[in-house]
Amino acid sequence: MRFDIIGANPKILESSLTNGLIKRAIEKSFIEVYTHNLRDYSEGNYKQIDDTPYGGGAGMILKPEPFFKCINRLLEERTYDEVIYFSPQGNKFNQKTANDMSLNKCFLLICGHYKGIDERVIDKFVTKEISIGDYVISCGEIASIVFIDSVSRLIPGVLGDGESAITDSFQVETGFDCPQYTRPEEYGGLKVPDVLLSGNHAEIEKWRKGKAEEKYNRIKK
Amino acid sequence: MRFDIIGANPKILESSLTNGLIKRAIEKSFIEVYTHNLRDYSEGNYKQIDDTPYGGGAGMILKPEPFFKCINRLLEERTYDEVIYFSPQGNKFNQKTANDMSLNKCFLLICGHYKGIDERVIDKFVTKEISIGDYVISCGEIASIVFIDSVSRLIPGVLGDGESAITDSFQVETGFDCPQYTRPEEYGGLKVPDVLLSGNHAEIEKWRKGKAEEKYNRIKK
Repeated sequence: MRFDIIGANPKILESSLTNGLIKRAIEKSFIEVYTHNLRDYSEGNYKQIDDTPYGGGAGMILKPEPFFKCINRLLEERTYDEVIYFSPQGNKFNQKTANDMSLNKCFLLICGHYKGIDERVIDKFVTKEISIGDYVISCGEIASIVFIDSVSRLIPGVLGDGESAITDSFQVETGFDCPQYTRPEEYGGLKVPDVLLSGNHAEIEKWRKGKAEEKYNRIKK
Repeated sequence: MRFDIIGANPKILESSLTNGLIKRAIEKSFIEVYTHNLRDYSEGNYKQIDDTPYGGGAGMILKPEPFFKCINRLLEERTYDEVIYFSPQGNKFNQKTANDMSLNKCFLLICGHYKGIDERVIDKFVTKEISIGDYVISCGEIASIVFIDSVSRLIPGVLGDGESAITDSFQVETGFDCPQYTRPEEYGGLKVPDVLLSGNHAEIEKWRKGKAEEKYNRIKK
């Protein structure tokens, strides 16, 4: 799976690509990630990549030319299954979308920053506008870390043995995981629930399901 | 505003703290961010920080001791307005939560990783369990980037002149921003809508509101 990422500040991504799950997925050749700095495609002496909005208003808008140049160059080399623009206006990203996306091979991720990008870039190239949640963040680079991580971990082989993504939260009915405990049995006066030490698998399953539902009802209702 | 972050892989955060908005907020002394590596608080020769779950099942659980040690040491030095654990089971993070959180001064952010942390850590210390969206990511460090960015940018002074967060998506009724355009008027045969060049501010406002509503209805319904 390949990710090309275009943005005004791709350096934000660096340590996410060289640590943790994404690093391991790259090292094991499950994914390739390439970042492209919008400034490398800007014109003029000042390498300006943004400008004031037509019609007035606060904030700067990322200019169309650097995006068009960069994207057109990339499109000469390959085709993309999806060209994604991250914005609060997009379709809400969820586990079903992550599952669907994990079947693709090649993504172009377009990162805006405050207060957006020229709409012609979206009209011309974007196949999916995605929002990672109902909140504002300063740039699409952060959304792209979330996207790459959540999609990459679904590629068979990326997670280690015994880490099957099938039992994840959101892959089960309530969408919730149960409380988890590990050694020691008692710590700071706090004990692991007896049922988990019982060895009775039917009872353990029942307890876990009940706890997950309890939490689901408390949080979501 | 101060953020202390505890996790198994805090290096993931590095380039998010040294680039973009968070870097600027740190440089201007609006925020301080400190990362704490769980491994520095583990015991024994193997510095083990995770173990298998009681009751069986896939995945490793982060052990209670390193969290207790690290958190107790931090609590000796200061109190926190909120101790937040990021998980898919948490309350959904949205702009209202970000607004509320931006009034606080001191956060302790607890980052889990697959397949979670010992529940006793949550029971003992956590004041808010937060989910950044209905999808699974490999670790809380990524959620903490989203959280720090979205909350920091609401501190008065962090955004530059003319970047007021008041006109953000989600701060207005539909929760949606309108399409934005900047120079040039025509690029690759694609033109800026005439109304934005008209200078008629009433018409521009009407068009923008209509476009935002149109997008809202298309995406959310």
